Amino acid sequence: MGENKIAKQCPVGRTVLLIIIAGLTGVGIGCLAMWSGIRMSFPTYFSRETTSGPNFVIFLADDVGYGDFQVYGHPIQEWTGVDRMAKEGKRFTHFYTPVAVCSPSRAAILTGRYPVRAGIFGHGQVFVHGSSGGLPRREVTIAEALKEEGYLSGITGKWHLGINKYNNTDGYHLPSHHGFDAVKTILPFSQNWACRQHESYIPGMSDSCFLYENDKIIEQPINLGSLTSKLLNDTIHFITSHKDDRFFYLMSFPQTHEALFSNRRFRGMSKRGPYGDSINEMGWAINEVLDHLVKLGIDSKTFALFLSDHGAVRRGCGEDGSNRPFRGEKCTTWEGGVRLPAVSWWPGVIEPNSVSHDVLSTLDILPTVVQLANRQRRISSRIIDGKSFVDVIIKKEGTPSDAADRPLFFYCNNVLTAARFRNHKIHYYTSNQSSDSLVKEGHAKCSMDTPKRIREYIAQYSCENFVKQDPPLMFNLESDIEEHVALNPKSQHYQKILTDLKKQMDIHAMSIEEVESEINKPTLPTLKPCCDPPVCMCNYEE
Amino acid sequence: MGENKIAKQCPVGRTVLLIIIAGLTGVGIGCLAMWSGIRMSFPTYFSRETTSGPNFVIFLADDVGYGDFQVYGHPIQEWTGVDRMAKEGKRFTHFYTPVAVCSPSRAAILTGRYPVRAGIFGHGQVFVHGSSGGLPRREVTIAEALKEEGYLSGITGKWHLGINKYNNTDGYHLPSHHGFDAVKTILPFSQNWACRQHESYIPGMSDSCFLYENDKIIEQPINLGSLTSKLLNDTIHFITSHKDDRFFYLMSFPQTHEALFSNRRFRGMSKRGPYGDSINEMGWAINEVLDHLVKLGIDSKTFALFLSDHGAVRRGCGEDGSNRPFRGEKCTTWEGGVRLPAVSWWPGVIEPNSVSHDVLSTLDILPTVVQLANRQRRISSRIIDGKSFVDVIIKKEGTPSDAADRPLFFYCNNVLTAARFRNHKIHYYTSNQSSDSLVKEGHAKCSMDTPKRIREYIAQYSCENFVKQDPPLMFNLESDIEEHVALNPKSQHYQKILTDLKKQMDIHAMSIEEVESEINKPTLPTLKPCCDPPVCMCNYEE
Repeated sequence: MGENKIAKQCPVGRTVLLIIIAGLTGVGIGCLAMWSGIRMSFPTYFSRETTSGPNFVIFLADDVGYGDFQVYGHPIQEWTGVDRMAKEGKRFTHFYTPVAVCSPSRAAILTGRYPVRAGIFGHGQVFVHGSSGGLPRREVTIAEALKEEGYLSGITGKWHLGINKYNNTDGYHLPSHHGFDAVKTILPFSQNWACRQHESYIPGMSDSCFLYENDKIIEQPINLGSLTSKLLNDTIHFITSHKDDRFFYLMSFPQTHEALFSNRRFRGMSKRGPYGDSINEMGWAINEVLDHLVKLGIDSKTFALFLSDHGAVRRGCGEDGSNRPFRGEKCTTWEGGVRLPAVSWWPGVIEPNSVSHDVLSTLDILPTVVQLANRQRRISSRIIDGKSFVDVIIKKEGTPSDAADRPLFFYCNNVLTAARFRNHKIHYYTSNQSSDSLVKEGHAKCSMDTPKRIREYIAQYSCENFVKQDPPLMFNLESDIEEHVALNPKSQHYQKILTDLKKQMDIHAMSIEEVESEINKPTLPTLKPCCDPPVCMCNYEE
Repeated sequence: MGENKIAKQCPVGRTVLLIIIAGLTGVGIGCLAMWSGIRMSFPTYFSRETTSGPNFVIFLADDVGYGDFQVYGHPIQEWTGVDRMAKEGKRFTHFYTPVAVCSPSRAAILTGRYPVRAGIFGHGQVFVHGSSGGLPRREVTIAEALKEEGYLSGITGKWHLGINKYNNTDGYHLPSHHGFDAVKTILPFSQNWACRQHESYIPGMSDSCFLYENDKIIEQPINLGSLTSKLLNDTIHFITSHKDDRFFYLMSFPQTHEALFSNRRFRGMSKRGPYGDSINEMGWAINEVLDHLVKLGIDSKTFALFLSDHGAVRRGCGEDGSNRPFRGEKCTTWEGGVRLPAVSWWPGVIEPNSVSHDVLSTLDILPTVVQLANRQRRISSRIIDGKSFVDVIIKKEGTPSDAADRPLFFYCNNVLTAARFRNHKIHYYTSNQSSDSLVKEGHAKCSMDTPKRIREYIAQYSCENFVKQDPPLMFNLESDIEEHVALNPKSQHYQKILTDLKKQMDIHAMSIEEVESEINKPTLPTLKPCCDPPVCMCNYEE
């Protein structure tokens, strides 16, 4: 419908001129959504023989680190679907999440806004299975934004933005209430420590492992061996059913959140061990989806994006993900926590085997997707923190980047802990953990019983443990990617950057309205999903 | 001459059969040096239309880290000749040096033997410009080993295996006395802190920066702006002159040893800063040499190998190289000190864009080169610690590796500090520096005057500062590439590995004959090279 409107306003005859204007000035993006029927050699993006915006597939990984793939420098990780995407598409080296923990990072992706605006902060940082809060319905997700353009949206896999509100079956916060038309197999909560494959479920915690189909619980605990296949089947089914529609699909993997798992087919196969097996299983599923897009002949009109939600955990048991070359990890705002592996794929449009060093954020996904769907569209009803990176997607490698004068802010809960600004990283607060150092007694920690380990883990990663840095620590991220040597706070250079950043921070701070914490809303045992009470065990598929 | 002899022993008619036997059994390498005139499709290596072994070009970098190139995962390093080699050839992920400091690491490359056998250990770990010791003439270098096969050898760039013995002009230890027929521009000592570009030379230290042509000093201090071009000209000249001969050429770069430098053409161009400029200048020279080999039409009969001598220094001034994803650095025997970026290139023979995870060592270069030059040749006059990796070079990606039951030992001076054994790393002693941690006062350290910094640096990296680990630390390098979590010394797994390794260590230890330290031999001011005394400044080229 959206596209019909544009067609009326922009007769095909005018399209070429308008495209040239847009190309030269970067504004006047009047009718670009049409891509006209006319073949042009430059830029490739506009030469597609289609009259509508592309489909969107987002592959979202859980707790996977920047250094976890071969194309990102892992020495022994096997080749995966993600590496294939990089070979056939564009790999990003500076793609950030504003928060390095699950629930807020997912809110940022879906809304294009700092999660503090939606109240996605609070004690524990994430929703648990008895939480009454969730992503507020007033927020507009990508799925909702695209509905206006005639897109259909689907999701499978991890959600982690709330489940119930009033009772344990209302599903008030689930994706069907956030614009997703097709909700298949989902983990409303998260893969978690209690759901260990080949082990007894931890007493009193096995009820935290459950699978939904749309708004209904179908499996508790989760059969992890078949989980990835389920998600893949959902995805293939959705894509096939809607190959002639325009769609947005979020394939949200539980990999590689602890407890690590993999199907028998992958188990014990990776040189890296269980972590590599898990990466390989996810990579296999991604590869299958890409193959299917090609088979259906819709690859050239599908923009796919792989990314993680934040850095890898350093479990300290010798089976960790890698955030290298960066310092830090999940729940910290060092680069290792907030810089993501991210790869885009769009055959015929994106230059194969290209690399982008542009500074981007998960906040940018919503505006990018909306611009690709409809170049005329302006979002004016609410503050969007991201900006479209359509130009980055289509530009050839070697084209200079825009001056990265835009600051990116990083939060732990509702505290602004750090910022990326003009090739520098500035830390106002830092996590006090030192996970990069040697863990001599790691084996002892690893054999610790799981509930104790979880308690220790949660305490360690708490925002309350962040240490104030006054003066703030500043690093030059180009000459010092490892955030190793802090710049001299007395230098003019340091002062200038801090002063300029302060101005932007003040503007940012003023734009943040105080909202209620969704995560601090009551957590009640009565809200916990439970099938076949009081046992809370079922498998309705069998 | 060597090749004529083989031709006599092996009539052409028998070659095919013998090759097949060799392929099946891995032994019986009777006549493979001939490569016969018959075209065969498998393996590629044997199908070359040549009747002799290939040329050898080794590009040796100084202090460049594993993570310093784009193909090894550096996020912002520009594309270089090294990345080109990886794209057109084979990249190694497990290539080790037995010692993580210059003089011994270079002795290992040239002799195929642990440097402790040649006496390349001692206080300070490296030769200085007044040293009377050097690589003993009894050692047989690659250049000498290849002489028997009719090869000509050339060298340009850094040597660092001794200069003079009796007076400051005898050049007793220089490369011309170690089998190199053509010695052009060389740095007999090393690029060093005193040789800072665009800065006053450090009082009393400028005499440590000098350039030789063969056995004669030609420039003191060094004009760093033209240095790389000089080395490139030497290399191009040698290769062109000997394009119809069989040759071995060592292009030994001063990059990226402090003081960092680059020509005006590269300066300020890298996104990374001066370190990236330095990498780019070296990469440019490598690219030029490759282009020249192609232009001369001898690329398909030239085996080129790029490698560093050991891991990068962590200067702590925000302009460091990257050893990521590994822990540690130069002068430590953590992976970051001993694992090297290494790439091989041989158009038409090596599978393009391939990656090898085989565990290799710089000790293996000599036997590999000798086997490629003459497959019949057996080295029996002395202990060679390395083994040929010809099979790794020619095999297709995905072919299983040999079981890596061979231990690789790592030394600091004459102390065996660590070992790589069956995918595990075992540390008997570890460096006590913690360079991976945050350097809050780095700016203060960086503005420290250079002689003081050097003293502090040398003290910090001394072998005397290594700390004994009892029980030894053990890491699983596959699931824990960062040497982060030590395994439980009480586990059966740990005990088994340690016991098996002990047997191999005993054999190794018994094979080491006690020899005099070359580095501890007197260091005398009268041995320091000095042109135009007492000023010690000249430029005989101008």
